[in-house]
Amino acid sequence: MTDTAPQPVTEDRTRIAGRRDRLRALAIAQDLDAVLVSSLVNVCYLTGFTGSNGALLVGSNGVDVLATDGRYTTQAGAQAPDLELLIERACAPALAGRAAESGPVRLGYESHVVTVDGLGGLERAASAHRSGNEFCSVGPAVEALRAIKDPAEIEALRAACAIADEALAGLIADGGIRVGRSEREVSRDLDYRMLGLGAEAVSFETIVAAGANSAIPHHRPVDAVLAIGDFVKLDFGATFAGYHSDMTRTFVLGPPTEWQREIYDLVATAQRLGREALRIGASVVDVDAAARRSIVEAGHGAAFSHGLGHGVGLEIHEAPALSALGAGSLEADMAVTVEPGVYLVGRGGVRIEDTLVVRADGPDLLTLTSKELVAL
Amino acid sequence: MTDTAPQPVTEDRTRIAGRRDRLRALAIAQDLDAVLVSSLVNVCYLTGFTGSNGALLVGSNGVDVLATDGRYTTQAGAQAPDLELLIERACAPALAGRAAESGPVRLGYESHVVTVDGLGGLERAASAHRSGNEFCSVGPAVEALRAIKDPAEIEALRAACAIADEALAGLIADGGIRVGRSEREVSRDLDYRMLGLGAEAVSFETIVAAGANSAIPHHRPVDAVLAIGDFVKLDFGATFAGYHSDMTRTFVLGPPTEWQREIYDLVATAQRLGREALRIGASVVDVDAAARRSIVEAGHGAAFSHGLGHGVGLEIHEAPALSALGAGSLEADMAVTVEPGVYLVGRGGVRIEDTLVVRADGPDLLTLTSKELVAL
Repeated sequence: MTDTAPQPVTEDRTRIAGRRDRLRALAIAQDLDAVLVSSLVNVCYLTGFTGSNGALLVGSNGVDVLATDGRYTTQAGAQAPDLELLIERACAPALAGRAAESGPVRLGYESHVVTVDGLGGLERAASAHRSGNEFCSVGPAVEALRAIKDPAEIEALRAACAIADEALAGLIADGGIRVGRSEREVSRDLDYRMLGLGAEAVSFETIVAAGANSAIPHHRPVDAVLAIGDFVKLDFGATFAGYHSDMTRTFVLGPPTEWQREIYDLVATAQRLGREALRIGASVVDVDAAARRSIVEAGHGAAFSHGLGHGVGLEIHEAPALSALGAGSLEADMAVTVEPGVYLVGRGGVRIEDTLVVRADGPDLLTLTSKELVAL
Repeated sequence: MTDTAPQPVTEDRTRIAGRRDRLRALAIAQDLDAVLVSSLVNVCYLTGFTGSNGALLVGSNGVDVLATDGRYTTQAGAQAPDLELLIERACAPALAGRAAESGPVRLGYESHVVTVDGLGGLERAASAHRSGNEFCSVGPAVEALRAIKDPAEIEALRAACAIADEALAGLIADGGIRVGRSEREVSRDLDYRMLGLGAEAVSFETIVAAGANSAIPHHRPVDAVLAIGDFVKLDFGATFAGYHSDMTRTFVLGPPTEWQREIYDLVATAQRLGREALRIGASVVDVDAAARRSIVEAGHGAAFSHGLGHGVGLEIHEAPALSALGAGSLEADMAVTVEPGVYLVGRGGVRIEDTLVVRADGPDLLTLTSKELVAL
């Protein structure tokens, strides 16, 4: 029945209020009367509210209003007791109307989130109060704030990664990755272990890809059965306190062959180079290139068909993108994945992925499972 | 790491092509050269492609083009072999450009899906080829097609509902809903049973709400422990072949008290009235009212704080909305939920929900678990 929204770290209200103040400073700098936040994840980040319907008005005058519908009155009051609450099913238009109540308003909005119809609804709701309102995109301003994690967020990510590490260790120790099991059985086993270890949910649909399927970067587990000689690629994560872990490991069933060792070593080297490139101030394009170069030089450039990594937090994919198509530079306390892969169609593929936090003294590795080639 | 998309029924290509032809007829009727479909679920419905990045161009000239990125080249070829394939990371702009290649284009787009930034991108991509293009909203045209299920879709929904029924039956038979267990333990147990019975995934985060928590319509399971005298509300579902089941049952631990019997009977009666109102041609507002009236008359109108139900299919919430705020009438082969509830803050709440298909000879009930008050 219900939409779900991320569950935030239980944390003191001051810290969350500080996030709204950073957005407010941006609103003031852009001469806006208020910013209307429509992205539910952004609302959660800025308020702590985790309901499936909500919007937030952050006023340059210091007044913030959280809107949600009647299903969430109690929950919103409990999760965001320091915010004025507006109960209305159509949250964002209600807040646009509220913003325009006391005069024509210059209102920031999220043009990368609000649909064409949605903007029309905001404009109508505001003009029902006053004409002459102005809607100005603030772009992904909140996503930019979210890219830098505070200590509690990093500890939530660390806990999520620890659950994934422990679940995989248990799966291996119990012989869960074995010849004769289907990809689907392995993925369910791993998911169940993560949930049993305290994951709120799995971060995304767990990927278990064996044999030739391992050459499909985003394979969904099917009834294919693991066989001797297969690469088995597992890409999975747990959520804890709303934060997502993300890790990929690739194993081999039985003794690895020459070509398997070769591409495994190639990817492992690229992954190490990528991790080593995670330095404050490094451009995301350069980080991607640092890992990609070694794969290209080995003649497998075309077989590394995706970006090197992505930010991770309240969403499994968030800013920054570590990619040739990305923009900007790394900053301290960004949480990112590093996940190069080489995929040989019809034969098999290897991806190795960690979640890390960018730090002045080198990246803080959150996913601690070994990256040596393991034969099971 | 990955976004996930629904997995469609394995079905013959003719049936899926028929869906595109219905959209094409609409495009021709609106004098459009093509419709650009951006919603990933709609793309899946119209093509069978389940990757996490894609867009579709349905041409009035009979030519359809599916766009996705390099990660999905193989998958798209396998799932949609009868479609021309365009490989480009920014799928929708690539298709807008493609549409404008041979002259200025009058292009339908999904204004309820495409963001303000997204529309700007489409316009730029088209005008890079030709100026004078026109973008016209087609609104939720594909969602309207999706509301009417074909026989294979109904069988997928039936299978999804059967998994949920069987999982719940097993949970009860094994004493899984018992004093001393936490909400979280019960939800994990139920989820694991659904996955073991062949669910691809759970339809949404399972709700297990005990005691006073049962009065929170969309409670998330926590470490609260089930106690004697509690209402225990379970709202959950399984997906099968991409289709979602949705069912709620409310139990009582130990002998029900007078007030518990009263509100249970009230909700059960309202739910029956709602089901009986599911007739071809009935307005969705009237269906909601048919169930709501009895709750209002009993003085609990304010405690039924949400709509009566919603369509269900490739998404857990889809058209039509059975609600006082809804619009339109029921048609044959619409799949909907009927889920009235009464929530008494601080005491407890009851919701009873089925998934059904609208039929000429009365609704086809897909969730078969008993709705009698069961004391566990």
